[in-house]
Amino acid sequence: MLNFEKPPQDKALLDESRVFTPRFDENGLVTAVVTDARDNAVLMLAHMNAEALALTLQTGFAHYYSRSRKAIWKKGETSGNLQRVETVLADCDQDAVLIKVTMTGHAAACHTGRRSCFYRSASIEGGKAVLTSIDDDRAFDPKEVYGGK
Amino acid sequence: MLNFEKPPQDKALLDESRVFTPRFDENGLVTAVVTDARDNAVLMLAHMNAEALALTLQTGFAHYYSRSRKAIWKKGETSGNLQRVETVLADCDQDAVLIKVTMTGHAAACHTGRRSCFYRSASIEGGKAVLTSIDDDRAFDPKEVYGGK
Repeated sequence: MLNFEKPPQDKALLDESRVFTPRFDENGLVTAVVTDARDNAVLMLAHMNAEALALTLQTGFAHYYSRSRKAIWKKGETSGNLQRVETVLADCDQDAVLIKVTMTGHAAACHTGRRSCFYRSASIEGGKAVLTSIDDDRAFDPKEVYGGK
Repeated sequence: MLNFEKPPQDKALLDESRVFTPRFDENGLVTAVVTDARDNAVLMLAHMNAEALALTLQTGFAHYYSRSRKAIWKKGETSGNLQRVETVLADCDQDAVLIKVTMTGHAAACHTGRRSCFYRSASIEGGKAVLTSIDDDRAFDPKEVYGGK
């Protein structure tokens, strides 16, 4: 397993460093933004612990850490919607990564069957925060793919 | 100030809800992914508490919450690089938002002067995790803009 070096004490050194020293938070996680390599569309947001990040870099397939299930999760293992990693980018202070992927299977990242998890726009109407769907196309039927879940 | 309703107890209701009930974490924050409305490029990742999210929706300019400074932060207040909000999208389980913006000023989101905070690709070389810069263009000189910071 790939071992990441510890981040430097001086945060100013993170900006231009050529060593990847992810700053895992108090739960041992970095945030991962996942985009479609074809058109940069944001597909989903997830978290990675050191093992998930190492597996992603080493295998070329996106692995995440499920905070609810407390387990490593190879994206698409159940649904067949694997994410082949094209590029991994780190942000300036190294506490987030951007994963550009090519999707396999149904080419959908969301558990609802939609391509992206960001399918509702938020706005204020009559003093209330409301959501309006901008994508009701489902690439798969979640009941069929995930069963009783 | 806009008040957000509490999320439902049953998480399954979040997917198709038309009420925006952000699931703030134990620190009162949601994660915000920020993209350039022109071409979907991911610019930065930040956090919002209820006040920052409300201000973003109400004023049309991106506001974030700085975890290090423990304060609301109107993006671009110091650098002049304000972010005009074109669209706010919520994700399926409502613990993250995607903010599509038009940048003003230098059209750069990163404190290093680069357009995006994600300017280094990560890979494995000789068993070590390394970073390679893919963008050394600086739209502004951080020393000039932020002074001694």
